[in-house]
Amino acid sequence: MKKASVISVGNELLDGQTVDTNAAFLGSELLCLGIPVTRRFTVGDEIDGIVRMLALACQEADFVLVTGGLGPTADDLTRQALAAFLGVELELRQDLLGQIKAFFDSRGRAMPQVNAIQAHIPAGTEAIPNDLGTAPGILARREGKVIAIMPGVPFEMRQMFGQSVVPVLREACSGQVVVVQRLRCFGEGESAIAERIGPAMQRGRNPLVNCTVDHGVVTLHVVATSDEPGKARRMADQEVESLRARLGPLVFGTGDQTLAQVVGNRLATSGKTLAVAESCTGGLTAKILTDVAGSSRYFTCGWVAYSNTAKARELGVPTGLLDTYGAVSEQVASAMAQGARHRAHTDYAIGITGIAGPAGGTAERPVGLVFISIDGDGGTTTERFRFAGDRDSVRWRTAQTALNMVRLRLGL
Amino acid sequence: MKKASVISVGNELLDGQTVDTNAAFLGSELLCLGIPVTRRFTVGDEIDGIVRMLALACQEADFVLVTGGLGPTADDLTRQALAAFLGVELELRQDLLGQIKAFFDSRGRAMPQVNAIQAHIPAGTEAIPNDLGTAPGILARREGKVIAIMPGVPFEMRQMFGQSVVPVLREACSGQVVVVQRLRCFGEGESAIAERIGPAMQRGRNPLVNCTVDHGVVTLHVVATSDEPGKARRMADQEVESLRARLGPLVFGTGDQTLAQVVGNRLATSGKTLAVAESCTGGLTAKILTDVAGSSRYFTCGWVAYSNTAKARELGVPTGLLDTYGAVSEQVASAMAQGARHRAHTDYAIGITGIAGPAGGTAERPVGLVFISIDGDGGTTTERFRFAGDRDSVRWRTAQTALNMVRLRLGL
Repeated sequence: MKKASVISVGNELLDGQTVDTNAAFLGSELLCLGIPVTRRFTVGDEIDGIVRMLALACQEADFVLVTGGLGPTADDLTRQALAAFLGVELELRQDLLGQIKAFFDSRGRAMPQVNAIQAHIPAGTEAIPNDLGTAPGILARREGKVIAIMPGVPFEMRQMFGQSVVPVLREACSGQVVVVQRLRCFGEGESAIAERIGPAMQRGRNPLVNCTVDHGVVTLHVVATSDEPGKARRMADQEVESLRARLGPLVFGTGDQTLAQVVGNRLATSGKTLAVAESCTGGLTAKILTDVAGSSRYFTCGWVAYSNTAKARELGVPTGLLDTYGAVSEQVASAMAQGARHRAHTDYAIGITGIAGPAGGTAERPVGLVFISIDGDGGTTTERFRFAGDRDSVRWRTAQTALNMVRLRLGL
Repeated sequence: MKKASVISVGNELLDGQTVDTNAAFLGSELLCLGIPVTRRFTVGDEIDGIVRMLALACQEADFVLVTGGLGPTADDLTRQALAAFLGVELELRQDLLGQIKAFFDSRGRAMPQVNAIQAHIPAGTEAIPNDLGTAPGILARREGKVIAIMPGVPFEMRQMFGQSVVPVLREACSGQVVVVQRLRCFGEGESAIAERIGPAMQRGRNPLVNCTVDHGVVTLHVVATSDEPGKARRMADQEVESLRARLGPLVFGTGDQTLAQVVGNRLATSGKTLAVAESCTGGLTAKILTDVAGSSRYFTCGWVAYSNTAKARELGVPTGLLDTYGAVSEQVASAMAQGARHRAHTDYAIGITGIAGPAGGTAERPVGLVFISIDGDGGTTTERFRFAGDRDSVRWRTAQTALNMVRLRLGL
């Protein structure tokens, strides 16, 4: 089985200024290609160090994936280090220079002189297109090893990896078939889900089941490996079926679907609409819904009714309710959802009120207390939650839980 | 200057199941002790691999900090690897066994037999107390190098590091002082800022100036090193002063301040309030503003006026403007800001309309075209932007730029 090493370049990674999410992304993606990452090296912006890590990584693996250090400034030294490692010179590529200039032109700006360095790549290597930024990547081959250098900016790296590096890796490991399927779950934590699926997550199994968690969404990655495409596919399908049977409605989607996409798809295809009235989440729920391109088909309006005045004035929440039960109450959450649906003339509306913290909690209404209400044709459903974690976690869990309630309401 | 290497052990790190926040924590803590981390290695749960990484790390640095692989199960192999690296045997320490048994006793449970392995450490090394879990750490000294092995569980590692490892490191590098200051900038890209500050970012300088970018915010890290505390402080101060002079109003803050914090602080201290009416950012602007704890002092209400109907009904944008100029226009952005300020009775309001993409662009109104308006006592200012990148980038750049416009309007 072919193996990969990942090199992350950047002083900001060593200093702890930036958490290296690129390396985790590559580890997970490569595993799904059937290429385990066996070593990871992190090095600062210094030519000698990068050269040494390239040499080590090439000893350890068949594929070496490098991120970072392709920027235009004096501390971006990865392309120089690759040239030194390969024992060649950097060459100015006029076509790349033209592309970089065009990138700035399209934004009505002149190319700063420093960016010209990004048009240089080591002699004998290939440029990898960057559709989202100015720095092309670099692909080098040496003694049967493939070295791919990508930018450190996560969205540029991810796009470049998927579009241009994955095909190269796939070709280099032909003969081995890996089928990956993902199940996306919401509603229980990682360990509760691990308990439900029993021994499926044991290492060394085939199919392998890996688990990652992001903002409350637990993703199970089913990786089936075989030398026969049909067999790998069947193994993955069977495993997915068995996991679905154990997890029931905790599974909301497959692949990289988000809760907002699953809810949005159903609303769009059934011609239904949704509004949001949120307090403690402060716009996050609307933000997540509108992360989905095309969400204007079903999402029309949101209110961030942060003050009591705004709740009453914009959503018609009776001031009597606010006075009697307090802003963080089941009654106010329901009235917010009903008010939003009424004003926006939508089929469904979400109402959210809670205490995100760190301040504002009391013994009766502690930080993390949240009420979420869904109003629709079938009536109003309101639930009470007590979420753990800091302000950011409470807000994310609240918004995601609201979308999950809409999903269940839609029968998904 | 003494240097450190960090080794992170665990298959879950290589697979991308777990993002390595321990390494970032250690990098940041060590830098503040004046001990830069110059290399980081990540390796799976395998004895040979860990031994090789220990050898490499000892070549590269004076201090080697290792996290992970101290658990009680068969795949936890760091203590065995350390023994192999040192060429000694593991020894059962009765005192450690007693502590582990006491840990379980205090929770009313018998010690599972597997945990006995955690009472073993390599001959000639010291145990590091673990107040929060069962696995003691291990401190080894070899040829002038210090190796500290800590658990991978973040809260156990952090407590052990602060309580027992920091004193050892401090003693080993008395005499060296490092002062770090950060300047936070917004309004130009990394390369334009690098051009403005000229040679300040050259490698090998002291103070060293590093640059990181996150969601359009460029952070300059000034790291001054000396054997004299007063001198390091003066060097850092002088560098910061010189950078500020070159960057002018691009600098909005220091440390880890965000645009939302800087704007929020000023609004709070001056008793002013802010509302937001946003379309293409879909709630993100309100979300960023309310990321700040205590933002309810100045942020009262937000509208996500996604449909034209919502813009007219909720914010009073004249339908004539929407028909004549289109929803994505200077006129509609201004009317949104004015409508929000009027309805919410705030001192300031933001209006945002644009095309986040990927669909919806035309030759005249391409993806990334955004109008941002600020309404306040001094009148309404509206600017036109063309942002690059995908939907997420366009939305982030838009929201941050809106906050930056408020900052400049507040004279910050």
